[in-house]
Amino acid sequence: MKKKLAILGAGRIGQVHARAIASNPIAELVAIFDPVKDAAEAVTSQFGGKISDIDSIVADTSIDAVILCTPTDMHADQIELFARNGKAIFCEKPIDLDAARVRSCLDVVAATKAKLMVGFNRRYDPHFMALKAAITDGQIGRPEMGVITSRDPAAPPAEYILRSGGIFRDMMIHDIDMAVFLMGAMPISVMATGAVLTDPDISTLNDFDSATAILKWSDGRQVSISNSRRAVYGYDQRIEIHGSDGMVQAHNERPVNIETATSQGYQRAPLHDFFMTRYVRAYANEIDAFISSISDDTTDIPTGQDGLNALLIADAALESAHSGQAVQINQD
Amino acid sequence: MKKKLAILGAGRIGQVHARAIASNPIAELVAIFDPVKDAAEAVTSQFGGKISDIDSIVADTSIDAVILCTPTDMHADQIELFARNGKAIFCEKPIDLDAARVRSCLDVVAATKAKLMVGFNRRYDPHFMALKAAITDGQIGRPEMGVITSRDPAAPPAEYILRSGGIFRDMMIHDIDMAVFLMGAMPISVMATGAVLTDPDISTLNDFDSATAILKWSDGRQVSISNSRRAVYGYDQRIEIHGSDGMVQAHNERPVNIETATSQGYQRAPLHDFFMTRYVRAYANEIDAFISSISDDTTDIPTGQDGLNALLIADAALESAHSGQAVQINQD
Amino acid sequence: MKKKLAILGAGRIGQVHARAIASNPIAELVAIFDPVKDAAEAVTSQFGGKISDIDSIVADTSIDAVILCTPTDMHADQIELFARNGKAIFCEKPIDLDAARVRSCLDVVAATKAKLMVGFNRRYDPHFMALKAAITDGQIGRPEMGVITSRDPAAPPAEYILRSGGIFRDMMIHDIDMAVFLMGAMPISVMATGAVLTDPDISTLNDFDSATAILKWSDGRQVSISNSRRAVYGYDQRIEIHGSDGMVQAHNERPVNIETATSQGYQRAPLHDFFMTRYVRAYANEIDAFISSISDDTTDIPTGQDGLNALLIADAALESAHSGQAVQINQD
Amino acid sequence: MKKKLAILGAGRIGQVHARAIASNPIAELVAIFDPVKDAAEAVTSQFGGKISDIDSIVADTSIDAVILCTPTDMHADQIELFARNGKAIFCEKPIDLDAARVRSCLDVVAATKAKLMVGFNRRYDPHFMALKAAITDGQIGRPEMGVITSRDPAAPPAEYILRSGGIFRDMMIHDIDMAVFLMGAMPISVMATGAVLTDPDISTLNDFDSATAILKWSDGRQVSISNSRRAVYGYDQRIEIHGSDGMVQAHNERPVNIETATSQGYQRAPLHDFFMTRYVRAYANEIDAFISSISDDTTDIPTGQDGLNALLIADAALESAHSGQAVQINQD
Repeated sequence: MKKKLAILGAGRIGQVHARAIASNPIAELVAIFDPVKDAAEAVTSQFGGKISDIDSIVADTSIDAVILCTPTDMHADQIELFARNGKAIFCEKPIDLDAARVRSCLDVVAATKAKLMVGFNRRYDPHFMALKAAITDGQIGRPEMGVITSRDPAAPPAEYILRSGGIFRDMMIHDIDMAVFLMGAMPISVMATGAVLTDPDISTLNDFDSATAILKWSDGRQVSISNSRRAVYGYDQRIEIHGSDGMVQAHNERPVNIETATSQGYQRAPLHDFFMTRYVRAYANEIDAFISSISDDTTDIPTGQDGLNALLIADAALESAHSGQAVQINQD
Repeated sequence: MKKKLAILGAGRIGQVHARAIASNPIAELVAIFDPVKDAAEAVTSQFGGKISDIDSIVADTSIDAVILCTPTDMHADQIELFARNGKAIFCEKPIDLDAARVRSCLDVVAATKAKLMVGFNRRYDPHFMALKAAITDGQIGRPEMGVITSRDPAAPPAEYILRSGGIFRDMMIHDIDMAVFLMGAMPISVMATGAVLTDPDISTLNDFDSATAILKWSDGRQVSISNSRRAVYGYDQRIEIHGSDGMVQAHNERPVNIETATSQGYQRAPLHDFFMTRYVRAYANEIDAFISSISDDTTDIPTGQDGLNALLIADAALESAHSGQAVQINQD
Repeated sequence: MKKKLAILGAGRIGQVHARAIASNPIAELVAIFDPVKDAAEAVTSQFGGKISDIDSIVADTSIDAVILCTPTDMHADQIELFARNGKAIFCEKPIDLDAARVRSCLDVVAATKAKLMVGFNRRYDPHFMALKAAITDGQIGRPEMGVITSRDPAAPPAEYILRSGGIFRDMMIHDIDMAVFLMGAMPISVMATGAVLTDPDISTLNDFDSATAILKWSDGRQVSISNSRRAVYGYDQRIEIHGSDGMVQAHNERPVNIETATSQGYQRAPLHDFFMTRYVRAYANEIDAFISSISDDTTDIPTGQDGLNALLIADAALESAHSGQAVQINQD
Repeated sequence: MKKKLAILGAGRIGQVHARAIASNPIAELVAIFDPVKDAAEAVTSQFGGKISDIDSIVADTSIDAVILCTPTDMHADQIELFARNGKAIFCEKPIDLDAARVRSCLDVVAATKAKLMVGFNRRYDPHFMALKAAITDGQIGRPEMGVITSRDPAAPPAEYILRSGGIFRDMMIHDIDMAVFLMGAMPISVMATGAVLTDPDISTLNDFDSATAILKWSDGRQVSISNSRRAVYGYDQRIEIHGSDGMVQAHNERPVNIETATSQGYQRAPLHDFFMTRYVRAYANEIDAFISSISDDTTDIPTGQDGLNALLIADAALESAHSGQAVQINQD
């Protein structure tokens, strides 16, 4: 029996997940809800399923799981709703921008024993999965230090930044989660700095566009992260982990592997220009993992706790950027 | 209205094409035929369509096009059959191992004005497409010389080699087609050499496992091709074209772009180990192109003539390998 | 007339400089002093010059310049001595581990108008020179962020660490100088962390073997530095600067550019295993620059002030590593 | 006792060798001859030695060896002269453009038991040495196939081509020697083609500017070579050898290893623009090897026979380019 899934939110990322479900041999998209009916119809016409509404999805006991692609401020309520109604839940990050609200939500998840996966898609990027596997396989010994680079082609719209929680909570949080995931433990403190270097308008939004941070673990291990909301050469996503016996690097993914050489020298094209193209395989993999996990408790997925952990570190980094002091991370 | 397609042959490559059709928003798989009924059912259960037979497919006027994944010795007859019955035809290469038979088949195609596409999938590989685009865009000036490397991880089974026409006609023919495609004209002569270097058993099949050739154009342009049926480091597929203003290289595609460094040095994983994984995007792209071409005569696809051209060059290369002389290519 | 130079200290680095002088067409090695006479003789026999002593070198008015390769704690006194006696001075870094002593020494240099160059050899590495030139040429716009990686193959002997001032003052100081040099201004603050990850014995020396730092400029610009006293894959030296219009990276130098591919994948040899081989061209270039600067005030060389600046930042980083706070840098 | 060397010919390459001798700790440049006295003086003033003439060099029994950088048509006579007078001889390639003359010259060398090294400098390039070592160490098993690329930045002057013997004998001969050296045996036949693609004037010189060849060994092994007298992106020198257990590639040497990335993509500078800069280390290494070999018969150096072998293959390639037939190589 194929797993039956519903999607809430038929925007850009909802469509990506609908395609992943349609391509998964053990899953079926049965319902889609979006207040914009045309958006919902666009999904059903291409990937199947029926247009529905939240109450009907809650009530439909044949539905195994829901994919939440709704606005961030609805996530926690919807997680609680579906948790109480026996659905497995995939929720785009973040659960909420307020750590306290995340905690109370996770209490409901725990009490209901609901399955909850948070959409840290990078854990499912093939390059980073191979990097993680290299560490797990012991190829570099014990992971001790890291250098993570994450630079966006361009800043998101002002309205996004206003609701996103800012560069530490919408952007660096991905790198933070990867650092925790790859080092295999929570750090104890963070030092960070932020500035507006690319666009003065970002100052008016009370955000930074450039940030650097150092995470530190209790045993002295260290990871530095460098972020910018501008990279004219494309979407720059690199991770490098150093261990006792060596290091492993994930270089950037390139859409095609050609190189031209002229009197000006050797040229390769810019990188991907968008996270949707860069992480296309990661998005498909994460939904496949979620589907596999619905009836299998051994599949390792990013949990609500992982979402909370990353948020706590991002909050601490933001505090450090303002205070100029290393900030201890609240070990939840 | 979606284009309706039928597939003949539900083997490995038939399944690949079925998936491509299922993923194409303007196409629909409606019929599948394979003498092995289980194979046909495996396709319909995953990608839709009904199990059918050749006569029914011929008779069904709602079917726009057929995909021929049948054994090579059936290709020419089936092309003629479907051409006479108004179907667009995608045929896996080669049309036939005998150039005369190909010619008579193409006469039927011409007389019936049927659409025929030959499955030179490499023309649809994203890397090679980008390389071709770089040439077409004038980035390297006029293409003048080339170096093509194509090395298989391991030799195919003896039974395949017995029916394939040998290394020049089953393997180098792909490189030959790319050379013609990229240089934009037919060469006038070929010099080639072949040997058995990897497995003495191949001698008993009257084939080579290692071959090198030089194609030459009427204006003196030159492309060399190096082939081996063994590459322990994976499926090695590279093309390099030199022009008056520069050169363009397609490096190998790597499944993931990670690198480890230990006391032994820097390591990257072997290449793809199989053409089905290496050319997964190429296979999808070529079926998309075929579907687009069904009702559009402007889409540029590899034609029956392209198939014949490559075969004539491969035949000449084989003759040269035996005679030790440059062989003029029959300009058909 | 060739410039006449004397070298004080005939150890490893003194020999390197002697070779550079011997190869320089406008210079001549005339005197060498080392308390170990065999060491001095080894230099004169290979590169010319006579064995001498400090008083004689001071007194010999035909000598234009001295190269100080003596122990660190002699540097400041010797700089003052030769400054007062009209010699141009090249001094291996650091001038002194104590910033106050450096300042008083530089006062003498200023008062005597002596020429003083500090041996920040990395400024003369061909790769980093090309990187600097790319910035100066405007290829990346205004430099705004940086990521510097510097990892030694293995820790130095305990006795070296005891006298070196520790990882921030003997190792990171090179990266700090490059950051200042490439960003073109002094930072205003530094956040740093340090730990012992590779060898517990280093704890007993009151030093770290692993350190990460973030330098920040008054306009918000940021550079992160990652250091380790262990890199089993060789001497890892990389710099990456991001600007408003792009970025420039100096990859590692490799002694040879070959790659093997076997069933285990693609392999390249480890990096250089020693700074003396990695920076062989840098050492030669810096001495050439010093020689050129002797009678030319327009040649841009690292000055005593550059040495002091880097020391002040390194001191601040060490303080930050202990306090966990961002430390303001004393703008001297 | 240092070896005493004389140089005949103080042109560009004579100066390179003079520098190598001056840098070699066991050698000494004692005499230099050039009909252009200024050229000779330029060498003596920088690298030592005295201006001399051929008769004096012949007569000076303290001189151990001579370096012949004279015009090609003097080589054979001068080799015979110095062989008969007990000097070790380093001769720039070729010994002569006529194989018969080379044979008679080598007869004299054999009869006099003179030491003769031919200047195939590429055997001493660090990258190619490492590639050779990888083969010798068994890293790729038995070498079986090869692809060699050699493309000059621009054509030499017409007067050079007129006297050089043409592209096969002045340019491809280097690749031929490397093929023989790396495969470890003489090939039995060659197929080649040539054309004028870059400059019609070269036709008037009865030469080609573009050539491709396939060398074949008696056991079926194959190496292809691609040559052009034009590469707008710099001096392109690559070798790739495939063996039973893997392959080894020498990528191009780059003066610096930096890369910039802008909105136009990733850029690296063009390659070296001249063989004198590309092979600077090779030239020094070959002279060091020659010096070491003077009194040591175990040092493996390219011999007169190696020079003759490469010439015979180049002659056969030229014949093949004209006849369009595979040409058997005269096994001397």
